Amino acid sequence: MSEKTGKPLVPSNIENLKPYVAGKTIAEVVDQYKPEKIAKLASNENRVGCSPKVKAAIDEAFGSIQDYPDPIARKLRAAIAERNNVDPEQVLLASGSESIISILCRTFFLNRENVITADATFVGFFVQIGVCGVHLKRIPLTPDYRYDVKAIASAMDENTKMVYIANPNNPTGTYINKDEFEWLMKQVPSDTLVVMDEAYYEYATKVEDYPATLDYDYDNVITLRTFSKAYGLAGFRVGYAIAHPRLIKNMMKTKLTFEPSTLAQAGALAAFNDREFLAKGIEVVEKSKERLYRFFDEHNVEYVKSVSNSVMMILPSEEEAADFTQKMLEKGVILRRINAFGLPNCIRITVGLPEEMDHFENTFKEITASVV
Amino acid sequence: MSEKTGKPLVPSNIENLKPYVAGKTIAEVVDQYKPEKIAKLASNENRVGCSPKVKAAIDEAFGSIQDYPDPIARKLRAAIAERNNVDPEQVLLASGSESIISILCRTFFLNRENVITADATFVGFFVQIGVCGVHLKRIPLTPDYRYDVKAIASAMDENTKMVYIANPNNPTGTYINKDEFEWLMKQVPSDTLVVMDEAYYEYATKVEDYPATLDYDYDNVITLRTFSKAYGLAGFRVGYAIAHPRLIKNMMKTKLTFEPSTLAQAGALAAFNDREFLAKGIEVVEKSKERLYRFFDEHNVEYVKSVSNSVMMILPSEEEAADFTQKMLEKGVILRRINAFGLPNCIRITVGLPEEMDHFENTFKEITASVV
Repeated sequence: MSEKTGKPLVPSNIENLKPYVAGKTIAEVVDQYKPEKIAKLASNENRVGCSPKVKAAIDEAFGSIQDYPDPIARKLRAAIAERNNVDPEQVLLASGSESIISILCRTFFLNRENVITADATFVGFFVQIGVCGVHLKRIPLTPDYRYDVKAIASAMDENTKMVYIANPNNPTGTYINKDEFEWLMKQVPSDTLVVMDEAYYEYATKVEDYPATLDYDYDNVITLRTFSKAYGLAGFRVGYAIAHPRLIKNMMKTKLTFEPSTLAQAGALAAFNDREFLAKGIEVVEKSKERLYRFFDEHNVEYVKSVSNSVMMILPSEEEAADFTQKMLEKGVILRRINAFGLPNCIRITVGLPEEMDHFENTFKEITASVV
Repeated sequence: MSEKTGKPLVPSNIENLKPYVAGKTIAEVVDQYKPEKIAKLASNENRVGCSPKVKAAIDEAFGSIQDYPDPIARKLRAAIAERNNVDPEQVLLASGSESIISILCRTFFLNRENVITADATFVGFFVQIGVCGVHLKRIPLTPDYRYDVKAIASAMDENTKMVYIANPNNPTGTYINKDEFEWLMKQVPSDTLVVMDEAYYEYATKVEDYPATLDYDYDNVITLRTFSKAYGLAGFRVGYAIAHPRLIKNMMKTKLTFEPSTLAQAGALAAFNDREFLAKGIEVVEKSKERLYRFFDEHNVEYVKSVSNSVMMILPSEEEAADFTQKMLEKGVILRRINAFGLPNCIRITVGLPEEMDHFENTFKEITASVV
């Protein structure tokens, strides 16, 4: 072998990223703590599952599994375009919102630009921007755990290329309303991108002052939606972006040629067309959420009201959040600490099925009783 | 809306990329030309299909489709590590080799570095490097369509970060041998990465002087393999990299958290464990390839002998290559022109099933007879 070049192996923004530490699988939790039952309330998945029509669709698609997927997901793209009254050229499909955020990173950044978002939002955005090496300005939430659009507008400077807003926000479940969105759009230059991550959109549509971005017509807004939440297909990895054709055209250049996979395209299309099942899952979340609010009110637990499928508990300290999460885990209730999202003293609880909420409530009472 | 910043929307390396133009689907070919039968010999997929064990595995995995995939693909990673006598920490799973190449781009490049490869190789590599914006040096193949390792070594300079070699090469089907690989590794500095893309490795293992990289122990070699070719799972999107733990550790930081998908992990594991089916598919390719060589010899067609599952025809001109491909397409024989791979007068033929080779040969004779 020849001598070394002596240059750094990886750029410092990558070297300094913390390696991903995978959490325990359910099998590992069962194995270690042997709980009587499990309630997986950690990842905002749809506890109702997915449409029964998905299985038949993937069984059919499986017949061509040896072939590469359709690179532009023609059928699914057409269905999404039609439902949203946009051209197919305005729709891009990829392997989940995380992949689309990675595509945004690969498509749009010049040197020395920056991105603005909240200090407590989707951890996947923080990770991808860290990989990208772009400067990220994290703006504190308001005291009631909402995006502070005034502070975001004030933080914009000549190098701001993108504003990222998860709406509803994850992990808080809060949202910016129509007035705030419309006000913000007046402040943003027309060639600065506003990425509206609507992963939880389906849960928020009944909220009167929730600004569904596709009801507007801004050329610089990129709307992100996903099949991982209300459609119950997180395992498939399908998300989509809707935006002006010029933006989508450039994003199509940087997406992986063959994402999403064949079965993911077929399964997502079947789920997309089963609006009855979608509505049922949303109703389950509504009911369990009301029940959880009542439970927290009765037990004097501080929490944040949510328009998505999770509710955030606020604990007095990081230590107590860690302790509570661990004790619940040992009894088979898997919750999500959200320190990586920027809120170390908070816990995110996915709103699940009635029996999962029973397990949550019973275990909560058991644990807090033993503390007292 | 506020005034414009006036800065370019996308960096010039992205603006200048050609947008992807999706080819016709089989349904569109059937619809347009109404051929009596179809032989899809365009994408080097496994025409034998995949192991019959895959279906049961994905049916089982489907039960958790509403949940996110295992981010580190524990089971599949362990199986790959065990078979190859490496630690699981040396294995990274992602959505196909294309995704792994994108991960390489996101992980390793500093400013002003360059990458060296052949002028005629896997188009997916050209695309991802174009997205990345790194300077690419494309070194001409030898006159017998092989990687020119001497010329590659000569092209290395102080800014060379990576050498990429597809071995066997795609689209040529040729390979660099043990002597060439070992010689090249003596020339390469120990902190310059050598990416050996062994997508077609399974087809080449019987070739005596083929250098399977995992039989060596170089800390700066990254081996890429895939489930899209011999395992017949292109629709799933699963590829893997095997390398020194320090390299994998950094690559794990930039992969998407939840790739590959749940069903892809389960299906790939079932296929990986069915070595009997794998061997059968390889045998079909061997036989069809010998038959194709004889056919070309009989018909005075110039071609390149291959150690993978495709054979490259050499035509006198780009026009003739385009014309022949189009005429075959109209009769239902889908071939791949490889201008994007850097060989405009050549055509890549995936070696298929006996009935597909019949269709190829009969159509070839029909077309060339009508020309004479």
